[in-house]
Amino acid sequence: MIEIETRRLGNHEILHALPAGKHAQPLPVVVFYHGFTSSKLVYSYFAVALAQAGFRVVMPDAPDHGARFTGDEQVRLGQFWQILHGSLSEFAGLRDALYQAGLVADQRLAVAGASMGGMTALGIMARHPEVTSVACLMGSGYFTSLSKTLFPPQDATEIDALLAEWEVTRALPRLADRPLLLWHGDADDVVPPGETFRLQQALQREGLDGNLTCLWEAGVRHRITPAALDATVDFFRQHL
Amino acid sequence: MIEIETRRLGNHEILHALPAGKHAQPLPVVVFYHGFTSSKLVYSYFAVALAQAGFRVVMPDAPDHGARFTGDEQVRLGQFWQILHGSLSEFAGLRDALYQAGLVADQRLAVAGASMGGMTALGIMARHPEVTSVACLMGSGYFTSLSKTLFPPQDATEIDALLAEWEVTRALPRLADRPLLLWHGDADDVVPPGETFRLQQALQREGLDGNLTCLWEAGVRHRITPAALDATVDFFRQHL
Repeated sequence: MIEIETRRLGNHEILHALPAGKHAQPLPVVVFYHGFTSSKLVYSYFAVALAQAGFRVVMPDAPDHGARFTGDEQVRLGQFWQILHGSLSEFAGLRDALYQAGLVADQRLAVAGASMGGMTALGIMARHPEVTSVACLMGSGYFTSLSKTLFPPQDATEIDALLAEWEVTRALPRLADRPLLLWHGDADDVVPPGETFRLQQALQREGLDGNLTCLWEAGVRHRITPAALDATVDFFRQHL
Repeated sequence: MIEIETRRLGNHEILHALPAGKHAQPLPVVVFYHGFTSSKLVYSYFAVALAQAGFRVVMPDAPDHGARFTGDEQVRLGQFWQILHGSLSEFAGLRDALYQAGLVADQRLAVAGASMGGMTALGIMARHPEVTSVACLMGSGYFTSLSKTLFPPQDATEIDALLAEWEVTRALPRLADRPLLLWHGDADDVVPPGETFRLQQALQREGLDGNLTCLWEAGVRHRITPAALDATVDFFRQHL
């Protein structure tokens, strides 16, 4: 049995899932990031599955999503990359709050996410060597090039500057020195599967794929399948 | 805080969610049905949201899905309508098991689902007058006509005969005598939004829409949005 609560941690409301009765006990933790125009609640099945496997799961809302949504859908649609940058910047505070609350066992702290949340997970991996392992489902780490075609920002130069330091392009060794799971449906019609293929190839070309698990699911568009969820749980059972 | 467990009920494994500490207490119950090629676990965010609102939630796997999946994806893809019929037929046993376990308060038992699960919910409403209220998200109740284009079965005549008695076509009064929520993204590229529009119009034409809440979400394809999840919770707060 697991328990789930909505509570505050650090500056924001989170969804918090854990094996029943282990509230006060340090546990290996997965911070999970949801997708664009979605919410921590809509992605809470990852919290269910990972807590059933014994992990503490912490799910924040991205800026202007879920409990933080201002209600203006049109404004939000123009802010994809600013919102991604917001989640990336907020990770350090969330990590500190987790440690201060004594919730993390043995510095076992992983990050995962799907779609925009997968991009968040990869960006955090690029800049936070203290993260134990990372799972990115149907995401991308090539922010500045992808922003030319996916929700292109009005102020492209400013966004490029903000995101350059979180990009995977110059951070391949940081993505190679810990376990990394990439999953993508090969018929994804929102985040191109070519983004994941590009990263897989870049790591392989440099001989940096020793810690990489890259899974493709044939004929699957932009959605999480039971197999993707199982693969994520299996990955953290093995690598967290 | 809520609790979630995977347990057996009747003949099958279910996901069971409830407000913390209320295991033995009768509660209003929502039986929720997941979509095709998905699982109770992938849709468990409905269990999280509905249990947070005070309901007991019971989620079965459809035949050949989740814990019941044989692993043969190709065979399953050819069995959409047989699987739907399986879930429809199994409802009575699940209902009886819920009552026998003393889990239902005051005969407050609702049914909901998304996609194939929404079709399941509508079919159950058509034949089970004891169900209190029903939510169908991006589904359809016109099984025999939809089966001509959506996962058409090899043995169409046999399937038509099986599903005819669960169809909404001849059951409009049964869909009108209790609260019914229909939700559909108007850009749905899997289950045509025209299916929901057809039912909305049929009920309106007969003056049978007094208990109907029909919500459309603009520009949304085949996915559950935070607004759809909120609408489902709000509907059951009001009507269960």
